Order: sequence, then structure tokens, then C-alpha cells
Amino acid sequence: MTAQSCQFCKLVKKEDDASIVFEDERTMAFLDIRPVNDGHTLVIPKMHYENIYEIPDDEIAHVYRTVKKVASAIKQSVKAEGISITQHNGRAALQRVFHLHVHVIPRYEGQRLPRPEELSEAKREELEEIAEKIRVNLVNS
Amino acid sequence: MTAQSCQFCKLVKKEDDASIVFEDERTMAFLDIRPVNDGHTLVIPKMHYENIYEIPDDEIAHVYRTVKKVASAIKQSVKAEGISITQHNGRAALQRVFHLHVHVIPRYEGQRLPRPEELSEAKREELEEIAEKIRVNLVNS
Repeated sequence: MTAQSCQFCKLVKKEDDASIVFEDERTMAFLDIRPVNDGHTLVIPKMHYENIYEIPDDEIAHVYRTVKKVASAIKQSVKAEGISITQHNGRAALQRVFHLHVHVIPRYEGQRLPRPEELSEAKREELEEIAEKIRVNLVNS
Repeated sequence: MTAQSCQFCKLVKKEDDASIVFEDERTMAFLDIRPVNDGHTLVIPKMHYENIYEIPDDEIAHVYRTVKKVASAIKQSVKAEGISITQHNGRAALQRVFHLHVHVIPRYEGQRLPRPEELSEAKREELEEIAEKIRVNLVNS
């Protein structure tokens, strides 16, 4: 996949809608359209790298600075009991969008992580409501 | 849990055995004793931080520089088709050792990630054999 046809590159260029919770010069965090739980967020580098093998050291380091920043705000916003942070490389690892992305997933006692095919698409207005809570907690943190 | 009673702090201090694949001043990577697949590695900061909320920005950034470094060497060493990178915070996210650790897990087509209770302990000599392959690939990378 080239950067031209990449759906996450389109979000970065604001050519497509996303419920963005945070962005800086090099990274962007937005709500997953098929969330495991409310507040499920994806963190991406703005530059197009397919996976962890391709991305330069300083870029992956910065991606995870952003992950850390949003993780606490998400936890607080949705009263999560735990947070799982996952990043998959390659089809065998169930990577489906070939622009490196880190899942930040709120967790609750006794709830297993569902398989991708069990998830359904959320409504934009519901995502926007959650995104706003997270943005407020980020500003206040 | 205090750093004094932490099993990963003991590994850092070399008070307990581990099949170490990489270490630098601030991080250490060693094979998981209950691997999902051969080459399943844990990357930790040497300092004791319980989770992503506690660890300073620059430390988490460096942890993932090490993750990136070992991921390619692991992939090559065990001929993995994919790599999943996961980090869990809190009991609700199935965190069991309360010293931040990142799983680097080789993946293969059609194989789902097993639940923790499905995993069994590996033999030290088998782990050492795999660790040696990864170390060789790290030196040559």
C-alpha cells in the first residue's frame, strides 16, 4: 500500500472524518471506528510507515510518548480499570491497515478482548462525545 | 509491589536466571518463560515502574526503541510471519507482573493468541538456544 491510497494518511490530511483526541507535529490520536470499548483510540505517526520494522527509532519513540499521554486521559475519561496497548505487524498478526498504528484499549475486569470480526462500527456522534471528554482531560492533565 | 520484591527487578540485578537477548543502560530484553511462540520476548525498563501511567516520557520512548531493535532480530531468528507488540496495565488488562513490560510476540497465519492459562513453562536450555540465535541477529543487524 502506498501513502496515496492509505486510509490513515487521508485522516492525517483531513480528507476524511475522524474523532481526533490529540495531535502534534509528528503524531495523531483518534478514536477507533470499531471500538472494543468506549475510548478505544489509535495512535499513529503522521508520516506513512507500514510497520515497526520500517519506522525510524526517533519516530517510534515519539509515537509512544503520545501513547503514554493519551492513555492516562482515556483511563480517566471512561473510568477504565486497565489499559491494553497493542500494535500488530503483518497480516499474520491481524494487521489490516498498513500504516503503523497503536491501539490504546480501555479494559474492565472479566472482559476478554473480542476478535476483530465481533466488532461493529460506532456512530460518529457517539465517538465525538467520547473524544470531547478525552480532549478535556488532556488539556487538564 | 515494591522494587525489592519484584521478580523483574531481580532479573535486572542478575539475582535470578533469564535468557537475555539484549541490554543497554536503561532497558533489558529477555525471553518470556511461558512463551506464546519461540522467540516471545519481554522488554522492560531497568528502573521499576509499575505501568505506563508511572513511567517518565523519555523512559517509555527508550523502551520502545529497544522493542523496535529486538523485533526485527526476533522475526528473522524464528522466521515469524508477523509480530504483535502488547503491553498491559492493571489486573483488568491481565497484567500479572507489576513492573512495566512489553511483549514482543512472533505470529503465524491462522494462529490466534492463546490465553495466559493455556501457556506452559519452557525449559531453560531451549530458551537459551533461541536467545543465542536472536543475539547473533542483533549483532549482525
